[in-house]
Amino acid sequence: MAGIKQVQRQTGVALWRQIADRIREAISSGAYDETGMVPPETALALQFGVNRHTVRSALAALAQEGIVRAVQGRGTLIERKERLNFPISRRTRFTDGLGDQARETHSLLLEHAQEPANAEVARWLRIEQGTPVIRLETVRDADRRPVARGTSWFPAARFPGLVETYRQTESITKAFAALGLSDYVRATTEITAAHADSGDLADLELTPGAVLLITKAMNTDLEGVPVQYSISRFAADRVQFTIEN
Amino acid sequence: MAGIKQVQRQTGVALWRQIADRIREAISSGAYDETGMVPPETALALQFGVNRHTVRSALAALAQEGIVRAVQGRGTLIERKERLNFPISRRTRFTDGLGDQARETHSLLLEHAQEPANAEVARWLRIEQGTPVIRLETVRDADRRPVARGTSWFPAARFPGLVETYRQTESITKAFAALGLSDYVRATTEITAAHADSGDLADLELTPGAVLLITKAMNTDLEGVPVQYSISRFAADRVQFTIEN
Repeated sequence: MAGIKQVQRQTGVALWRQIADRIREAISSGAYDETGMVPPETALALQFGVNRHTVRSALAALAQEGIVRAVQGRGTLIERKERLNFPISRRTRFTDGLGDQARETHSLLLEHAQEPANAEVARWLRIEQGTPVIRLETVRDADRRPVARGTSWFPAARFPGLVETYRQTESITKAFAALGLSDYVRATTEITAAHADSGDLADLELTPGAVLLITKAMNTDLEGVPVQYSISRFAADRVQFTIEN
Repeated sequence: MAGIKQVQRQTGVALWRQIADRIREAISSGAYDETGMVPPETALALQFGVNRHTVRSALAALAQEGIVRAVQGRGTLIERKERLNFPISRRTRFTDGLGDQARETHSLLLEHAQEPANAEVARWLRIEQGTPVIRLETVRDADRRPVARGTSWFPAARFPGLVETYRQTESITKAFAALGLSDYVRATTEITAAHADSGDLADLELTPGAVLLITKAMNTDLEGVPVQYSISRFAADRVQFTIEN
């Protein structure tokens, strides 16, 4: 059911854009695994009922995303297809969760602030609205490919110095440990999906129309007291979540 | 971060389409909860930097999806905003999972077949490739709104008569019980997101460019033997998943 389906005219989404989306999904689902290449332009043009220029625009967009690469005389090579797998469990941590799937991971701190908790943040952290919280805006990447951008909030009184520690360690787990919280657990995760907005396009190096997986997550200490609330926006063609019960 | 962001020109996605997506997401995230209405066309035109005709096209698309309704002399009412919440746990069941969120749920059996298991189905069900499996294609709706379409596979030898029982009960849980399996658990769930394909648009009554949450899920009996493998495609603006650890 997830294979390549026909494109539709008069929909408000350009044909090259629809075709790029279909090819991206076919690559992710392993449809071209045998050859490691996208089918020839003529074959794609025939399959989608469009001309070769339209196919070429679609492939150019995918090349810009780093998904395929045109090689003179050979065709269009698939550069990367695999989704990183993020287990969601009581033990969920970003970097550890990737295990040996990435050689190198980074977390870039884009912005931080101390501010009063708004209604949503207060509800998740179970604190009074207006209580000071530390907010971190981060982009995390794996093998130099951005995977997720996120906003996290922490009760400020409990974690003084969090920003500096996080900046040095690039790890919430390590920053918590340095501040006296040696262990914590993932309590709740909500998952939705949506289109990328302009901020996502820039930070995650996506092209317009791209799809995101969005999580709202709460971590607590071992007594069940919330220590972190995060909204994370993952490039959907680069990750999947797995839940084992 | 999930608020309304600017639209972009020259992206292959028409402005009205982008604006419809942004408004849909703003409705889902509760941005207009106070009034229960979408802002006036003139305000939206100003916000997005487009003319009113473009805004009108966007609202017409949302009206077609049943998300908003134009009321003469009042403006554009929000018809529905809430996402259904599906808990993912060892006890996951489609209808029970909805709890009291829907007054009425249905499952429409579109197609069924007995066929040899392909490599993917065999791997999930832990059977030999080529072993006979029953395949069900269904569309499930809540309060007459389609929520998910899915394909499920079951080991045929273990569940003779499954198709008939399912057709009568509209419930996998009841069909299992009728065939001697009184209890089962959700073992593994993988979650990804992607664009809707043409089959999704028809079965789920979506408009092009819509986003889906896609699950691959395995259920086992209480001894851990797989009894069902399913791929389900959920309209992302109608559902969210929740994991409690």
